[in-house]
Amino acid sequence: MCRPVTFKPGSKIRLSQIDPRKVDGEWDKVTAKERIRENTLVSRELAYRLYAENRRAVLLVLQGMDTSGKDGTIRTALTGLNPQSCQITSFKQPSSEELDHDFLWRIHKAVPRRGEIGIFNRSQYEDVLVVRVHNLVPEIEWRSRYERINEFERLLTEGGVTIVKCFLHISYEEQRERLQARLDNPEKRWKFSTGDLAERKRWPDYQAAYEEALHRCNTTEAPWRIIPSDRKWYRNLVVSTLLRETLEAMDPKIPPSEAGLEGIVVE
Amino acid sequence: MCRPVTFKPGSKIRLSQIDPRKVDGEWDKVTAKERIRENTLVSRELAYRLYAENRRAVLLVLQGMDTSGKDGTIRTALTGLNPQSCQITSFKQPSSEELDHDFLWRIHKAVPRRGEIGIFNRSQYEDVLVVRVHNLVPEIEWRSRYERINEFERLLTEGGVTIVKCFLHISYEEQRERLQARLDNPEKRWKFSTGDLAERKRWPDYQAAYEEALHRCNTTEAPWRIIPSDRKWYRNLVVSTLLRETLEAMDPKIPPSEAGLEGIVVE
Repeated sequence: MCRPVTFKPGSKIRLSQIDPRKVDGEWDKVTAKERIRENTLVSRELAYRLYAENRRAVLLVLQGMDTSGKDGTIRTALTGLNPQSCQITSFKQPSSEELDHDFLWRIHKAVPRRGEIGIFNRSQYEDVLVVRVHNLVPEIEWRSRYERINEFERLLTEGGVTIVKCFLHISYEEQRERLQARLDNPEKRWKFSTGDLAERKRWPDYQAAYEEALHRCNTTEAPWRIIPSDRKWYRNLVVSTLLRETLEAMDPKIPPSEAGLEGIVVE
Repeated sequence: MCRPVTFKPGSKIRLSQIDPRKVDGEWDKVTAKERIRENTLVSRELAYRLYAENRRAVLLVLQGMDTSGKDGTIRTALTGLNPQSCQITSFKQPSSEELDHDFLWRIHKAVPRRGEIGIFNRSQYEDVLVVRVHNLVPEIEWRSRYERINEFERLLTEGGVTIVKCFLHISYEEQRERLQARLDNPEKRWKFSTGDLAERKRWPDYQAAYEEALHRCNTTEAPWRIIPSDRKWYRNLVVSTLLRETLEAMDPKIPPSEAGLEGIVVE
């Protein structure tokens, strides 16, 4: 099966020991494409029921290094869902208004409402990743955030939100190839900024920051999933399957209708 | 071609004189489906360019009587776009916080940002439709709203938003059939409320309210399009084509890249 890598709450992980090129031998590009299409049809129907039921929500969190494919996953694994049932929020550098509040303020505003699938392209985790690597706040401040995030996620979970956190795991070499491809392709060059190279120099710091975030926030209610992402088709397959299986496990139901509707004839 | 019905700014219209069953003889269910698929592929690519360009936005407004197919249009004509480039906002009964502001406050907050396609499922027009039919505010108040809406839409247009306003036009008989179908189908019955029958009794009031809104807010910058909607496949075809043609006319461009990127080799 095409499962993400998971690990026990409380245990540490070493990203260097998880192979980002891993694929399940059962699948190839062609069969994956077909399965993604099938997943989309199933998820679309379940999303409709989730909306009709209007009791619970799904929050899919996508995190990963630059070029790990957060946009590409949305484009490939999630296109084909009814856009009315998905709300995507991309978290960029916080605005000055956002910085004037606690770090979860802008996140909380974007949480999906009942019946919806919310997708976070980056998330609350940026505040223990880029913020930590660049020392944007003192260590004592970012260090307390792991617990604040766990509490926040528990609040959401208790409120009926199923949280699916995906770390798109790529290798250092794969990032090099993808950045070079952006530079070499005139249609993609607009995405490249020289700042990307400066960030790439911080690779070990980012990996360490991810390892700690994955370790400290891998709770029973909202576990992390590590998605081997060097191969785009496999990454898309795993995320698309994960969403489908999440919705299947939730098994949303069309709600009962108003009482006394039997026999009504519309005039 | 599969064009919506349009009319000159300033001129009045009589909805009873526009045939909601109209289809263009060139099309049938099968060819329409194929064309919608093709439209989606073209719009998806153009939406990507719109996002990359990051200068302008599209706002698609869907209005229509109950059962006219606002949800269905989104589901059929817009599924297949990258959900990251579409933000859908469904305006329901205003909350008490929303009612504590002017009627455009909640609308303004939901306007698409640069690079996005925003879709309004209901809109600012509810405030001259349901509000008027049910006398929720005094006539002098709703009557001034047409001009406020025109001014608001001009503000958006000048800010780079192309507004596409669609009125999904169905017949009284078609609504009867659709409401009855909801009642008769256990999978759809949850959508039905006895309040729908009370609203249906106000059909002539709603048609008059629509005629006035279409007339007064049919500006050069943001014209109304009337979509013959008794046949769902034709409605979907017309809206999907309209979105494609709007994006084609905007012709968004991939932006230039940062200067001095030539010859960079990523290490």
